[in-house]
Amino acid sequence: MSDSPADAAPPQVPAAPSAVVELRVRYAETDQMGVVYHANYLVWCEIGRTELIRTLGLPYAELERSVGILLAVADASLRYHASARYDDPIRVVTTLADVRSRTITFDYLIAHAETGERLVTARTTLVCLDRTGRPVTLPAMLRDAFGRS
Amino acid sequence: MSDSPADAAPPQVPAAPSAVVELRVRYAETDQMGVVYHANYLVWCEIGRTELIRTLGLPYAELERSVGILLAVADASLRYHASARYDDPIRVVTTLADVRSRTITFDYLIAHAETGERLVTARTTLVCLDRTGRPVTLPAMLRDAFGRS
Amino acid sequence: MSDSPADAAPPQVPAAPSAVVELRVRYAETDQMGVVYHANYLVWCEIGRTELIRTLGLPYAELERSVGILLAVADASLRYHASARYDDPIRVVTTLADVRSRTITFDYLIAHAETGERLVTARTTLVCLDRTGRPVTLPAMLRDAFGRS
Amino acid sequence: MSDSPADAAPPQVPAAPSAVVELRVRYAETDQMGVVYHANYLVWCEIGRTELIRTLGLPYAELERSVGILLAVADASLRYHASARYDDPIRVVTTLADVRSRTITFDYLIAHAETGERLVTARTTLVCLDRTGRPVTLPAMLRDAFGRS
Repeated sequence: MSDSPADAAPPQVPAAPSAVVELRVRYAETDQMGVVYHANYLVWCEIGRTELIRTLGLPYAELERSVGILLAVADASLRYHASARYDDPIRVVTTLADVRSRTITFDYLIAHAETGERLVTARTTLVCLDRTGRPVTLPAMLRDAFGRS
Repeated sequence: MSDSPADAAPPQVPAAPSAVVELRVRYAETDQMGVVYHANYLVWCEIGRTELIRTLGLPYAELERSVGILLAVADASLRYHASARYDDPIRVVTTLADVRSRTITFDYLIAHAETGERLVTARTTLVCLDRTGRPVTLPAMLRDAFGRS
Repeated sequence: MSDSPADAAPPQVPAAPSAVVELRVRYAETDQMGVVYHANYLVWCEIGRTELIRTLGLPYAELERSVGILLAVADASLRYHASARYDDPIRVVTTLADVRSRTITFDYLIAHAETGERLVTARTTLVCLDRTGRPVTLPAMLRDAFGRS
Repeated sequence: MSDSPADAAPPQVPAAPSAVVELRVRYAETDQMGVVYHANYLVWCEIGRTELIRTLGLPYAELERSVGILLAVADASLRYHASARYDDPIRVVTTLADVRSRTITFDYLIAHAETGERLVTARTTLVCLDRTGRPVTLPAMLRDAFGRS
């Protein structure tokens, strides 16, 4: 996670697009350990990147419906630093890490929204698919929005 | 749940179709109360009726794909009698309760597979929809399979 | 759902406590029908009643931790009127329907937050349990908060 | 995933413990893309390692209850090769990859049970925690069971 462009960017380079979204831990998301079940952080990552894509003017629901492309997770890695608990306020910071011809990579920092305690850091790479599930080049509107024409 | 046809059926009437499926409680299905989160029983009901439909020779996945109809839950009611816990073996008994022109109703008895303890009784009514989401008459193959031509 | 106290209340009777919470449909909550999987509405109901309890000055997380009581769902019924879709803004209105010595009943109206279209109406009855899982009388602070001392 | 001990083991070295478990894709596990939502593979991994631990004579539910230790996921990585669909039969092969003083690492191969098509490969590292959430050395019974005394 330490190689996120946002951290490394020298001043003259435009900051990588990023977005912040807050949510509250649901009872359904806890497990009998009394903390959030680990798979749910992937759901929060998805909420984070949806927000980032929306921020860039590209509602993802629209992308699927009208442009006819899907972004499917091809790779995911998560590091769990501390546990979220029921009703905790959570902040998800999503940063664009990389854009290639057929893939987009996002970095996530999931923290307690009040204490700022770091809970999970994660990275996912998504591949662009057409309606038949075949990998395709990112549409121009996506590349443009992500500042990589 | 006491009005299930299976319970009431006098000997000369053919028993209502039913199916039994077993599963084991997943960690992901527990919550911080240390028991199965209540919404998950609806997922188990769906596994039960899928099994019943399969038993009747109608794989539901096939129905959606080739026949082009969906069965959407229109009504659900659940009564929680006792709690399932992580790793418990669970038995779901699903019984056909009613078939009408556009709806099918199933009854469920969810119990601990070893002790037989009753955990949840439930009933759901599903409505038959075409691909555009409009309610339609049950296809003949479904009515036939359920013994109500 | 038609017997909700809020609907029936004549003007001189104080309105039943209620709370409104909004959320957005997550990708994870959809299924291959392209709509929200039906069990997820129970999760939203729980978010609604948590908000109502919080509004009354009783954070539920606190109740479990310090007072040592749990509210477990004993009965749930849902009627599905229309489907929510990915990224839809959703409004959950939760109303206190009944308070008895050991149980609390809530009514829910789940609607599309922008169009106001009614999606699901539901009712759940929760039973008060102590840490060993035995039903107990509602603590005074809960009864007071709900206006039934 | 290519460095799994099971793949590399020359004949004279005892094979790493492994376990196979089969399951069927639930409707609730699909999303509107028509395939299994990506976070659910982490749930299947957990089912896989539970089965491996059970195979070694250590029911995990027992470990939590009587020994008072938890195994919490500290790291997870997944690579998605192909998509599982509703009602597909799935096989999860879990292999012990590494045991250290406080951590255990598992490798997973998730495949279509009939065609053998590889769907997801994954690795998780779990850390041993006591009831207060502090990392502790693996209990002897766990180390013994995993063949690393």
